Amino acid sequence: MRFTKMHGLGNDYVYVDGFSNTIDDPAALAVKIADRHFGVGGDGLILAMPAEDGVEADARMRMFNADGSESEMCGNGIRCVCKLVHDHGLGPNPTANPMRIQTGNGVLSLEYTLDGEGQVETVAVDMGAPILDLPAIPVDESKLDARLDNAVFVSMGNPHVVIYIDDDSDLVQPDLGAELERHPAFPNRINVHFVRVKSPEEVEVYHWERGSGATLACGTGACAVCVAGVLSGRTGRTLTAHLPGGPLKLHWEGDEGSKDGQVIMTGPAVEVFTGEWPDNG
Amino acid sequence: MRFTKMHGLGNDYVYVDGFSNTIDDPAALAVKIADRHFGVGGDGLILAMPAEDGVEADARMRMFNADGSESEMCGNGIRCVCKLVHDHGLGPNPTANPMRIQTGNGVLSLEYTLDGEGQVETVAVDMGAPILDLPAIPVDESKLDARLDNAVFVSMGNPHVVIYIDDDSDLVQPDLGAELERHPAFPNRINVHFVRVKSPEEVEVYHWERGSGATLACGTGACAVCVAGVLSGRTGRTLTAHLPGGPLKLHWEGDEGSKDGQVIMTGPAVEVFTGEWPDNG
Repeated sequence: MRFTKMHGLGNDYVYVDGFSNTIDDPAALAVKIADRHFGVGGDGLILAMPAEDGVEADARMRMFNADGSESEMCGNGIRCVCKLVHDHGLGPNPTANPMRIQTGNGVLSLEYTLDGEGQVETVAVDMGAPILDLPAIPVDESKLDARLDNAVFVSMGNPHVVIYIDDDSDLVQPDLGAELERHPAFPNRINVHFVRVKSPEEVEVYHWERGSGATLACGTGACAVCVAGVLSGRTGRTLTAHLPGGPLKLHWEGDEGSKDGQVIMTGPAVEVFTGEWPDNG
Repeated sequence: MRFTKMHGLGNDYVYVDGFSNTIDDPAALAVKIADRHFGVGGDGLILAMPAEDGVEADARMRMFNADGSESEMCGNGIRCVCKLVHDHGLGPNPTANPMRIQTGNGVLSLEYTLDGEGQVETVAVDMGAPILDLPAIPVDESKLDARLDNAVFVSMGNPHVVIYIDDDSDLVQPDLGAELERHPAFPNRINVHFVRVKSPEEVEVYHWERGSGATLACGTGACAVCVAGVLSGRTGRTLTAHLPGGPLKLHWEGDEGSKDGQVIMTGPAVEVFTGEWPDNG
């Protein structure tokens, strides 16, 4: 079985063409193939495959984490699905632009740019509108404490808290991240993002992801950081977020004061190498 | 450039055929290709290439760590070099058995067994004789303390301390490992191995390697564990060591009481997948 190793800002998966390969047990394959010492290594396995019957889309993305669990969507991963479908000519409409990709969160529309060799370089993904209602995020307001006084809470389908760090403090705060992830105010736990504002158009971010700890890039988290910056008046509706794995561009659609626009995330998709895994299991 | 990902008990490297590929800057390539998120991922890069002029060997092994530094030898790596040369038919004598491989520690002789498909399955490597003289290891005896009362010190070209753990204590002791690695009694630092004796023929090992921390398998460390067991009367000259990455067989050659025999280490070599890296740099 051929595979392609790709990453978006260091968030790396093993990608398989599910149009021409049948994978009987993708969860079991993910556990084996994502192992970084005994397998190919990666954050998981992503299949680019035909959309389900009755769904209008150019491809479908199924993603399995390294532990075999399935996730609905990954902002860094879907950019690579778009590049795989385009550059490797998968499915009936590999050059569609925008490209519609079915995910566990519905069909998303992606627009891409090409590099000098005609291959996908950057991809813009409509990540949907934020959810700001505290109980819906969910945040239990009665349990907040002083450490969260300046925090901003945003859901992008998953819960985020954005903490602003001044110039005198350390951006990298794994201990506080781990503590806030399990703070009693967050019944579903939470993703924590430490942000240093460089200018109204630019921030630096350190992620602490729920269940994963420090990561190189969190797409939904970067969207939450853009929204939090607008809500708190610190940054504008168009933002470059410098994540540990590299920069993402964010844009929260809508006029000044609007809170219901979509967040558009634009970032790179990189093919690292192709390989041959001995079988389909 | 084609490459092969292989591992010995989870100690994994990217292997390249240096007979037909010219790598201008292997140290720089190692840094890029060994990165687990942005490259292929591995503990480093190993080249299987022609022996140097005037050296009687079937191949030469050059190994570069993930930080680009070059190492003389790796017991788990050299088994995979033997498998690569044999299974991929590299060089003038790919089926020589024993196979002679030039390393930074001289030419080593390897004997292998084949699986049902005629491919290398296990490889026995002569790892040389231990060095037991404390100043030569080096251990500064004047600085030892009570925590090292039952420890055994062995050099296999690199320094090791073996600590025996009773049934009531935890085998996994990263904190103590980190502390002993830099204990003042060890001027060149030291590799620490925690050992639980299951029987005179079988032990369980937890490694704390100098500069790397906890690892899945340390070949020279397993040899040191075999020697330490004989010296302390706990285990015999033939031993199975269950490392975190899997089992290794050790044999310290020589009659009872002998302290100058070679240590023969036998273990698996596994090919995980082959791939195509975009260039040679």
